[in-house]
Amino acid sequence: MVASAAQVSRVAVSRAFNPHASILPEKRARILKVAGELNYTPDRAARALATRRSHLVGVIVPDVCSPWESQEIDALTSALQVEGFATLLFKTRTDMRMDERLLAYVGGFNPDSVIAFAENVGPDTLGRVLHRATPIYVCYPDDGDGRPGSEGAVFDRLNVMQRTGIEQAVALVSGYGCRRLAYLEGDRRSLANTARERTLRAVLRERGLGEPVVVRGDFTYETALSSTVELFRMLGGAEAIFAANDVGAFGAIDALRFELGLRVPEDVKVVGFDDIAQAHWRSYHLTTVRVDLVERVRALVSLIRRRLKDPGAPAIEETVQTRLVVRGTVG
Amino acid sequence: MVASAAQVSRVAVSRAFNPHASILPEKRARILKVAGELNYTPDRAARALATRRSHLVGVIVPDVCSPWESQEIDALTSALQVEGFATLLFKTRTDMRMDERLLAYVGGFNPDSVIAFAENVGPDTLGRVLHRATPIYVCYPDDGDGRPGSEGAVFDRLNVMQRTGIEQAVALVSGYGCRRLAYLEGDRRSLANTARERTLRAVLRERGLGEPVVVRGDFTYETALSSTVELFRMLGGAEAIFAANDVGAFGAIDALRFELGLRVPEDVKVVGFDDIAQAHWRSYHLTTVRVDLVERVRALVSLIRRRLKDPGAPAIEETVQTRLVVRGTVG
Repeated sequence: MVASAAQVSRVAVSRAFNPHASILPEKRARILKVAGELNYTPDRAARALATRRSHLVGVIVPDVCSPWESQEIDALTSALQVEGFATLLFKTRTDMRMDERLLAYVGGFNPDSVIAFAENVGPDTLGRVLHRATPIYVCYPDDGDGRPGSEGAVFDRLNVMQRTGIEQAVALVSGYGCRRLAYLEGDRRSLANTARERTLRAVLRERGLGEPVVVRGDFTYETALSSTVELFRMLGGAEAIFAANDVGAFGAIDALRFELGLRVPEDVKVVGFDDIAQAHWRSYHLTTVRVDLVERVRALVSLIRRRLKDPGAPAIEETVQTRLVVRGTVG
Repeated sequence: MVASAAQVSRVAVSRAFNPHASILPEKRARILKVAGELNYTPDRAARALATRRSHLVGVIVPDVCSPWESQEIDALTSALQVEGFATLLFKTRTDMRMDERLLAYVGGFNPDSVIAFAENVGPDTLGRVLHRATPIYVCYPDDGDGRPGSEGAVFDRLNVMQRTGIEQAVALVSGYGCRRLAYLEGDRRSLANTARERTLRAVLRERGLGEPVVVRGDFTYETALSSTVELFRMLGGAEAIFAANDVGAFGAIDALRFELGLRVPEDVKVVGFDDIAQAHWRSYHLTTVRVDLVERVRALVSLIRRRLKDPGAPAIEETVQTRLVVRGTVG
């Protein structure tokens, strides 16, 4: 109906609705206009069965979303939309593992790709429920550990190299003469957190700076605030605090300033991790290890495109770097 | 295959995978276990065709996501997941309108429901691309305006009553003797912003407090910061600032403290809107008009369930209130 009303072929109508197909912009506009007048839209459920493409990308995120994850989902959704994909969100249980039933749903939606973290669901488990999609895992290879365990399942990787940024942070802090250092943890079940701690320890050892005091944390502002108070009231304090994420660093800064009457950076230096949008707000103006969000999203989209082009390829990977962004909380 | 291996009926297998179906927990667990061993999951594309249910809820958000929207998407995804729905994200163009082609995709995914704002896409336009779903619009009815324009399209409503919270904020601020008041705008294309401004003006008039100075804003920290500096350097300043959102209030507070050398609340009082998680951080400790996120998400999920139970019902609505949360930035 649309084809005859717009005086084009049925193939042209199909191409007009397919963001991956090349078609003259005026032709696409005319077809979409006619389709609109006729109330026609292609049904993706029907089309998914025919093409075996769902145009859905699943993203599995922890139960409680941090600003970092929100900003990543936001940027990723924009980038995927340009490529003709919609983002489908799934959240883990509070213990960060995936519900059996939810896992079945993930597969049931037949996504073209799924982005996951090994601490939430392993590649073997996830691979078992996916019909065609090869999952993408976020890995921290320069840590020498923290890789998703696999008994042979194929998965693609986004390698986040945390070491460079951490080395720069340690160099800066030790350059200001700080010797007594603390690491304010993130959630211990998070591989990003354990990789950060392990890399920080390795870098400190290499520079002969000894072990950091480890302060309990869970990526939240509240725990960071109370743990920092405890660090100074019970554990002898520190000259510099490395936080596992920016939100934790904000909690530490507020504890130092408002609970302990200490100045940042004069009395205590603070370094965050992530570089979320709030890190440059004047009240914090945080020196932090940056994971470039644009670069990270570009790498994820590239993994999705490369895999869809060659479904039979062996595991593929993309790599992103970290670097220190120097603002006002160190020297 | 699964039915015979688990020694149950095919109906039971289908029920085990349907979160809405009642089935004994042990039975469901056994079926899912067997299904896992056989690598079986129901394909939602096939099922959507059969049941005409996609188990997808579309959410249309502005191009640049604020912390408020992120927190709402996060809470909504958790709540929908419990009900067996997955959240599908769509983002508008930078001018806040929806792309024609994207609109066709929204319909193509055949969502069971779509949550939208009238400034992004009108009910008539959205209704035209949806096959079965009745869209849900967020409305501000106590403002007397700001409703989505409709030429007869049926849509469901979440009514956000902004007036109560704004009245409480004005009472508190005027109780401290502030007379010269400013309104720090959000994006002018946002109906939430225009409704807030109009309601604030109405409440000020009723209390004989005169017109507020209006300061340019767009919901971002950066614009709020520079506009607040301009307010004090060029426009004679204000005794109290009502911001259209919390992030804008943070920008105003930082401008007052770090650019203008003024104290909050001693020299200038600041009130936000939303009550995002960051509002209680010590550096801001913001007095703000709260839209209860849990209540709001519950109302949205209720609208979705009520509509799916009775697809032919006339427009349905749910209502949420606002109230002032008093912290440290006023008196």
